[in-house]
Amino acid sequence: MKLHGYFRSSASYRVRIALNLKGLSAEHVPHHLRKGEQRDPSYLAINPQGLVPTLEDDRGAILTQSLAIIEWLEETHPEPPLLPKDPLRRALVRAFALALACDTHPVQNLKVLARLRQLGLPEDEVTGWAAWANHEGLSACDILIAGETGPFCFGEAPTMADLCLVPQLANARRFGVDLKSFPRLLKAEAAAKNLPAFADAAPERQPDAE
Amino acid sequence: MKLHGYFRSSASYRVRIALNLKGLSAEHVPHHLRKGEQRDPSYLAINPQGLVPTLEDDRGAILTQSLAIIEWLEETHPEPPLLPKDPLRRALVRAFALALACDTHPVQNLKVLARLRQLGLPEDEVTGWAAWANHEGLSACDILIAGETGPFCFGEAPTMADLCLVPQLANARRFGVDLKSFPRLLKAEAAAKNLPAFADAAPERQPDAE
Repeated sequence: MKLHGYFRSSASYRVRIALNLKGLSAEHVPHHLRKGEQRDPSYLAINPQGLVPTLEDDRGAILTQSLAIIEWLEETHPEPPLLPKDPLRRALVRAFALALACDTHPVQNLKVLARLRQLGLPEDEVTGWAAWANHEGLSACDILIAGETGPFCFGEAPTMADLCLVPQLANARRFGVDLKSFPRLLKAEAAAKNLPAFADAAPERQPDAE
Repeated sequence: MKLHGYFRSSASYRVRIALNLKGLSAEHVPHHLRKGEQRDPSYLAINPQGLVPTLEDDRGAILTQSLAIIEWLEETHPEPPLLPKDPLRRALVRAFALALACDTHPVQNLKVLARLRQLGLPEDEVTGWAAWANHEGLSACDILIAGETGPFCFGEAPTMADLCLVPQLANARRFGVDLKSFPRLLKAEAAAKNLPAFADAAPERQPDAE
């Protein structure tokens, strides 16, 4: 398999963790987002959104969107599971993941911040926007799992929720968000970071890291 | 079941279509987003994000995030299916749905547009932003299904992709996006709108429509 990504992309980071947890290896193909390589016609041909990640499987099938890739990995390589068995618990895990993947990350991604700059916003307001988006999403997520004993977001093993949380917390720190008010999220992050699958997927451990 | 929503919310609209296709009924509980009713403490207690929709099932379980709700409906009420059987086809459908639910809709929702106004952007630039977000997402989606014969997004029956597409096209029109360059999307929309499940879920058919 090939994983088209970028070391700092949190959506790529999610898929790297999933591959590691499933014990799958993939050749990493970096696309430098800040240099605009994701808009190269050869990349747009496999990912019309011009976003990372894209996964090419061994038979050449092309998959886009990190959560669709993770659901596919879960269906084709079920062990260890990244979703609980019970439908209601699955819905809670997915809702947590989507609160970050839909309502948080895309509102603060490179493309949106670039657009804000084009509209004339000064750099401190651009960073403030990104911090706001992260704070809004993480605040809600901290409440969503307040009643979960953990140590992971949902139970004693990582799920799709943790795959989204750990990269989002890395973003939040880059934008200066004070995370002290999210103790439950930090507890889940600490549990995750003890696992090599998470540690090895970290941006600073990727070959294209700067 | 109770569906907390808002007539014009495209995320609520997706779930209304899913319930109709599955032949399930739910009591609709409107929350007027423009009046800020989604930030009422009693609503935040069930949906800490302060977003719609929220589904309460017959046993009082609370589900948030439209796509998590739709996956739960699919798992608990499998007929008619909203996802294909083949894992790769499921991934393609989910990727299309997520391209809209993650990268398009949240970038143009009420909360983000309100933030742009707070930052001092004039109304034409706010509308331009929303049009841009819709155009970006829909352009990519038109390419994603260019090779699909249809008439729906993926095949001869509606899937989760159509549930996301039809509400997003309604948003795009509200923001003045010219849809003529997306013929494949319009073909899928026309097929969907022939079905009562889609027609009955339309914003203008809801009791709280203005």
